[in-house]
Amino acid sequence: MESSAILTPSQLPYLFPSKSNRKKAYPSWPCSKPRTSQPTRLHCQKMYVPGFGEASPEAKGAKNLHNFFTYIAVRIVAAQLQSYNTEAYKELMEFMDRHSLNDGDKFCASLMRESSRHKGLALRILEVRSAYCKNDFEWDNLKRVAVKMVDESNTSIMREYVLETSQAESEK
Amino acid sequence: MESSAILTPSQLPYLFPSKSNRKKAYPSWPCSKPRTSQPTRLHCQKMYVPGFGEASPEAKGAKNLHNFFTYIAVRIVAAQLQSYNTEAYKELMEFMDRHSLNDGDKFCASLMRESSRHKGLALRILEVRSAYCKNDFEWDNLKRVAVKMVDESNTSIMREYVLETSQAESEK
Repeated sequence: MESSAILTPSQLPYLFPSKSNRKKAYPSWPCSKPRTSQPTRLHCQKMYVPGFGEASPEAKGAKNLHNFFTYIAVRIVAAQLQSYNTEAYKELMEFMDRHSLNDGDKFCASLMRESSRHKGLALRILEVRSAYCKNDFEWDNLKRVAVKMVDESNTSIMREYVLETSQAESEK
Repeated sequence: MESSAILTPSQLPYLFPSKSNRKKAYPSWPCSKPRTSQPTRLHCQKMYVPGFGEASPEAKGAKNLHNFFTYIAVRIVAAQLQSYNTEAYKELMEFMDRHSLNDGDKFCASLMRESSRHKGLALRILEVRSAYCKNDFEWDNLKRVAVKMVDESNTSIMREYVLETSQAESEK
């Protein structure tokens, strides 16, 4: 059972009727290869995540962060230009009005083809996003904040539900 | 100069005219407190990231991942139910058709209020997203993939540009 590490069937009888010979498939978890953070395990204890095909949730998350890093790099470069190269700053802002930053790579490729001055800006953005991702972005902090966010959100969702239903009960 | 660790003015004379007495502000980087991964430094070498106010890029990234984890938890629970509790599976699918998963917390809060059976599903999703985020999601891998993605994208953007322009040159 994929979720045996988390919840046992006895804890959730409604969701886990006694039936255990399900077919297992782990397309997105290459569990047999050794991981850096944990020793190799003979049996994969991970939950099966469907719908990612050849990719993994990590790759999907990284793709998202990739566009985010491009957005940040554009903000960094714009802030740097604003104070001492207003002409380049205006050009960048004007370009941003016309092009979406949702796809970071596409944005940079278009910027590079706009003019030779824009090309300089594009190269700078590429360099900044690489440096930001490797040196400045606090990966440990990302994990810490995300874990805290899940805990706090779970607590608050459950607390609000209990408060709401207990009020409804007492009003009866 | 905030980006002194990455690029020196001499490398980019167009973007960095000689002017260095700019006002510094690091709202999102609490650089004075010691970090776990690096020793305390007297001067912050990080690039200034504007526009995040009190929050940080890490918090913004974590918020994004938070919704992603809820999405994954819903997929995990749905896949588990599909094979041995088709009734609950159908109920979850039907609920998903009516409610967006873009805001994961809102989705869970609504699911919890739908019916007592839906409440069971919501509690399970909350539990799974917490377990997934803490145990299953490969944070090291996320960083590795994201860094690789930036390097590869940068190379490919520059290569494509060079190929394109050299072709245009040779056609003249």
